[in-house]
Amino acid sequence: MQTLLLGPEAVDEHTPLGDVVEAVEAAFGADARGDAVMPAKSYVDLPEYEGDFRSMPAYVDARETAGWDAAAVKWVNVHPNNPADHDLPTVLGTVIYSDPENGFPLAVMDGTILTRKRTGAASAVATDHLAVEDATSMGLVGAGDQAYTQLEAVSHVRPIEAVVVADQREEATRAFVEHFSDRFDVRAGSIDEAAACDVLSTVTPVREPIVEAVGERTHVNAVGADAPGKHEIDDAVLAEAKIVIDDYEQCTHSGEINVPWSEGLLGDADVHAELGSVVAGQVQGRTAEDGVTVFDSTGLAVQDVAAAHVAYERASEAGDGTQFGLVGTDR
Amino acid sequence: MQTLLLGPEAVDEHTPLGDVVEAVEAAFGADARGDAVMPAKSYVDLPEYEGDFRSMPAYVDARETAGWDAAAVKWVNVHPNNPADHDLPTVLGTVIYSDPENGFPLAVMDGTILTRKRTGAASAVATDHLAVEDATSMGLVGAGDQAYTQLEAVSHVRPIEAVVVADQREEATRAFVEHFSDRFDVRAGSIDEAAACDVLSTVTPVREPIVEAVGERTHVNAVGADAPGKHEIDDAVLAEAKIVIDDYEQCTHSGEINVPWSEGLLGDADVHAELGSVVAGQVQGRTAEDGVTVFDSTGLAVQDVAAAHVAYERASEAGDGTQFGLVGTDR
Repeated sequence: MQTLLLGPEAVDEHTPLGDVVEAVEAAFGADARGDAVMPAKSYVDLPEYEGDFRSMPAYVDARETAGWDAAAVKWVNVHPNNPADHDLPTVLGTVIYSDPENGFPLAVMDGTILTRKRTGAASAVATDHLAVEDATSMGLVGAGDQAYTQLEAVSHVRPIEAVVVADQREEATRAFVEHFSDRFDVRAGSIDEAAACDVLSTVTPVREPIVEAVGERTHVNAVGADAPGKHEIDDAVLAEAKIVIDDYEQCTHSGEINVPWSEGLLGDADVHAELGSVVAGQVQGRTAEDGVTVFDSTGLAVQDVAAAHVAYERASEAGDGTQFGLVGTDR
Repeated sequence: MQTLLLGPEAVDEHTPLGDVVEAVEAAFGADARGDAVMPAKSYVDLPEYEGDFRSMPAYVDARETAGWDAAAVKWVNVHPNNPADHDLPTVLGTVIYSDPENGFPLAVMDGTILTRKRTGAASAVATDHLAVEDATSMGLVGAGDQAYTQLEAVSHVRPIEAVVVADQREEATRAFVEHFSDRFDVRAGSIDEAAACDVLSTVTPVREPIVEAVGERTHVNAVGADAPGKHEIDDAVLAEAKIVIDDYEQCTHSGEINVPWSEGLLGDADVHAELGSVVAGQVQGRTAEDGVTVFDSTGLAVQDVAAAHVAYERASEAGDGTQFGLVGTDR
């Protein structure tokens, strides 16, 4: 038996965002219904290299709602000095995608692009359940790689027309505007202008809040905060918002809400639900009375499993990728 | 940048057991000195498929004692119905071996053979520190795949001449005897005969003890027990023995000692040390006064990292394996 190898181009080609959004939504629902197995992320901290590894294993059983189940582990690092010291990205991911029925590794694939797409997909799922129905404008705070997949994914769930991107880095902003100029009415703007849109995604590594106010009925995808002490949105905005999180442990520890949470400014009563519960219909998403909504996105292993499922299935159907005898099956 | 792919033949070829024993010994020492990072194994239980996945990440810093450091994750399943239902082995392993300095996946390799070899290597390390110096005979209870690597590995640390193998399965016993007949004075025998040797390795899946007595100064590598409720050695043997374990949590939960431990027949005072402490010289191994010694082997992620290190370094030197652009490095 052979294992399918999928490098970054193959993964990119076979993970159209519409499919990933659908699969990630199914994974959130499965998780909420108790049809997923997802141990906590394991951290291997390497202070001497100022980096770490994380292993993220999970199984998703979406057979009833979407006709598939799947298992995988993502092994991903965070080494912030990589760009300066090694001409490498800060984050590099590798995914082993396995048959849950017998454990055979069906595929090994690039996990870097997969991570970006499943993160965009989670924002799309949240936006679908939490943004106003007639949302047509989207703001991006941060013009890096994640901004691209946020806009791509969200445009699958709302008819986005106008886009405002805010980033101090002029070159990054210009590249973003150019990239999307043929599909959207897209322009550079201030953080306030981006934050006034119907949907806002924040994708920056800042430690102190830079979004001080948002539109009256804006839905915010808060994606950037990924460690204790980091947040992008002012406490006052969070205090008034309907807050939906992806995972209680992760968000209170290192997501957008972690700082006000640790300071006692937010507590259990301020968190509306986990996204999975909304997807599964156990808790309502946006209602007519809601103003600002915030999705705190930290990233779950079940999202990786869902995205890897899309990549494997589509690449297999297309006969793409490279077959390799990676694991022995002699008994 | 490319990732080196190593299938089962390449892994086998580039993991000579002498090198693996040395690397695994260095890993145990590093772990005891606090120079390893090894989160607990994560389990993904799949009752509907009567199987599970385990992810085992670790980092080993053996730079001071052995000149290397390394990081990896092993993703391994246990599906006992595989042989009958899928013509596949019960256990299939895949390893991602990464550069700890920047997180790049240097290699992806077969983890099945690697697991067998690092398990044999751990027994060799334990035997080196716990068996009598002039051990020349070795018994095997169980004649399966693991028995082969136990004998191969132990013969690197003691001048084994006579071998007794005990297994109810005549065909497996005959194959074992034939395989080693040109290198050892090897014969089939009873469990008692195998257990009277200077070194004994037990590698069976039994739930109830089958080894009721051992030689006066026998060193036992108890390898088979891998789940709560399983053990191979009679409580009376354990009660009199100097017991060394690989990991406190794992052994008391699912190793050879787990049953008498859960029944209160063994406790902290009955466990001499973890093997790493003996390797690091923090605790003495065998002394002149010692009779029976037992090593309870459950298998640690640092062993996999050590074995993967050997495979990667040797295969790279030899220019073997297949280079593949698995993970994107564009920033």
